[in-house]
Amino acid sequence: MIQSVSLARRAAELTSNIEEVESPDAIMLEFGCAFPGILPDLTDAAERALTLYRSETLQYSDMLGLRELREWIAGYMSEHGANISLDEIMVVNGAKHGVELACRLLLEEGDAIVVTAPTYFTAIPIFRSFGAKFINVGQDSEGINVEQIEDNLTWLKREGRKPPKFIYDIPDFHNPTGVSMTRGRRQALVELAEQHGIFIVEDSPYRKIRFEGDEEPSLKSLDRSGRVLAVGTFSKLLAPGLRIGWIAAQRDLLGRMMQLKSDGGPSPLLQRITIEFCKKGGIEEHTLEAQQIYRMHRDCMVEALRRYIPDVEVEVPMGGYYIWLTLPRDIDGDELERRGKKEGVGILAGSKCFAGQSDEYPRNVAIPNNHMRLAFSYASPAEIDEGIKRLARAYTTMRA
Amino acid sequence: MIQSVSLARRAAELTSNIEEVESPDAIMLEFGCAFPGILPDLTDAAERALTLYRSETLQYSDMLGLRELREWIAGYMSEHGANISLDEIMVVNGAKHGVELACRLLLEEGDAIVVTAPTYFTAIPIFRSFGAKFINVGQDSEGINVEQIEDNLTWLKREGRKPPKFIYDIPDFHNPTGVSMTRGRRQALVELAEQHGIFIVEDSPYRKIRFEGDEEPSLKSLDRSGRVLAVGTFSKLLAPGLRIGWIAAQRDLLGRMMQLKSDGGPSPLLQRITIEFCKKGGIEEHTLEAQQIYRMHRDCMVEALRRYIPDVEVEVPMGGYYIWLTLPRDIDGDELERRGKKEGVGILAGSKCFAGQSDEYPRNVAIPNNHMRLAFSYASPAEIDEGIKRLARAYTTMRA
Repeated sequence: MIQSVSLARRAAELTSNIEEVESPDAIMLEFGCAFPGILPDLTDAAERALTLYRSETLQYSDMLGLRELREWIAGYMSEHGANISLDEIMVVNGAKHGVELACRLLLEEGDAIVVTAPTYFTAIPIFRSFGAKFINVGQDSEGINVEQIEDNLTWLKREGRKPPKFIYDIPDFHNPTGVSMTRGRRQALVELAEQHGIFIVEDSPYRKIRFEGDEEPSLKSLDRSGRVLAVGTFSKLLAPGLRIGWIAAQRDLLGRMMQLKSDGGPSPLLQRITIEFCKKGGIEEHTLEAQQIYRMHRDCMVEALRRYIPDVEVEVPMGGYYIWLTLPRDIDGDELERRGKKEGVGILAGSKCFAGQSDEYPRNVAIPNNHMRLAFSYASPAEIDEGIKRLARAYTTMRA
Repeated sequence: MIQSVSLARRAAELTSNIEEVESPDAIMLEFGCAFPGILPDLTDAAERALTLYRSETLQYSDMLGLRELREWIAGYMSEHGANISLDEIMVVNGAKHGVELACRLLLEEGDAIVVTAPTYFTAIPIFRSFGAKFINVGQDSEGINVEQIEDNLTWLKREGRKPPKFIYDIPDFHNPTGVSMTRGRRQALVELAEQHGIFIVEDSPYRKIRFEGDEEPSLKSLDRSGRVLAVGTFSKLLAPGLRIGWIAAQRDLLGRMMQLKSDGGPSPLLQRITIEFCKKGGIEEHTLEAQQIYRMHRDCMVEALRRYIPDVEVEVPMGGYYIWLTLPRDIDGDELERRGKKEGVGILAGSKCFAGQSDEYPRNVAIPNNHMRLAFSYASPAEIDEGIKRLARAYTTMRA
């Protein structure tokens, strides 16, 4: 396969605030890219899309997305008793586009939102671009701390201030912590949002990348009052390069988001390739393969961490792409990121995953600087092993 | 070819403010969709993209777009002595996305912009969503009236008010009027913008769809001071379904626009399909075919109009997709649109192409209601003939 620009370079360009990994043979553990060996064969789907469906796929299309694809997504979202209709699905240009549209719909300059500390670091600048203020809440092994949200709401009410507009969370294999919410915690979160008339933006790209344990119902499937906007993507179900995601929400909310969109809608060619692949059962097959491969990658990374850097605390996730590390208190994650780069391994300092304090919300939790996010998705097992060795060398220079 | 939803329906959904054409055998003359017979065969390009380039096309990619495609676009833009570098090109999700990013970069709530009256009707809600106020200026056969812009600038200065942020125009085969700017007028416009420190947003989707006459230099190629942001698209060069466009601007402006983007970048798969097709000379071949076919469509529409509705005034365009009609003063275009729909022909009332008066800018030109835009791109010659017959029937009911 020809690769005109190295992936590490391209991945580094994805986020302007992250300096480029310098070495050409650097091992990339900082971004959740797909393992190259798992990228599916879409040639048949594309051939069908560009011949049988040419007048659909190369023409202007509708803003909500192809009906067949929306039907498939609605079926995918309908689980645990939930019944999502295709009229509640809008196809968008990837999950980030979905998060942006939710912000356009719900936020006005200065509005507060609830995020976990830490949270998905790429979403932070999107929220900021809408002038959002952050109410950070913690997580434990069961997920986001719902009592902490309630405390904040009570306090805001007492102070005569507006409640936050929405709670943003990644309930399945959280990015970056890997935590998956328990059923009870999900129920409590959805009930809290209903009681207080707050929206939830549920972002769940990793849901099917489960290695152990049983799937819990999505927040959307527990939602009885239309308070949950669920953002999904084919980036992890199929391939990131498709840039096809969706947002599931009540019809009136979708209608307003469609008015707020100013692109010409997602490419009908990409949508048709996606649905042709799905129709042949491609997603199920690909998901099984992804689960096997990424489980192996995770196991390999956990083992390497325990062997080469035994004094870091490892949260072993039951799925997803990431491992969240807690370093000894005196080890600064940002410095370790810099030293890792010198050793030829790209890692993400945990500090980048915190939205930051807002003066207006002093009840926020503290931001620790002794964390690190590692992605086990992209690198091969051999590269993961070598990458952690390099990280250990960088770590040792900080212990000296 | 399978077509799951009728194009007329999909096209109607493109713009929420246009009611759906009711009849299933309605002839669509209201939207600038591509003629189905001209949609190119992209199967080879897709096969290459999904095999040889799989690790590039199905992975995350960079925000500016694929280097090879940006090189091709830079070459396409470098003409008439201009030398555009690939560092001045950002690939985006279609031209509308480019216009939106230009607005994000340049506009603050309440800023004024200059638009032609009439202008591209789909751009109007994008400008409005940024809180823009409109300074409408007229056009003549040489293009936008630069003296009228200057008059407005002088008047604003005298009143101690801020100048407009940018001038939005479609210099080649203007949508909806079909007018192409002369070389002299282009020069005057660019000089005016330079003198007054105003930006120009040049939107030129139809540039290569020329039937007669010589190509004039783009505004971008006349720009010496970085005041022109040029928006381009493969929708008319190749196929609308690709949703691949670009914006050409000075590096610092591009950098700021990249910061303002919150999608994950355009799909590397679509970009690779596009560049593989371009590399084989596909665009040149397709452009020749498009010029031949759309010239024939235009001629057919002009002839039908002269035969069936001789009392409407027809501006015969030298290229593009549209014909702009001037109806007798007592014929209301909106009413004719409604009656046309009853007769089974979709047409666009000219009133929809006017951005509208702003109270703050009383020097605006008046908005006439006796215009109509017809697209000759999508319908076949036989359908065009039948469509104009139906329009003539609708017209006759208004003369009675």
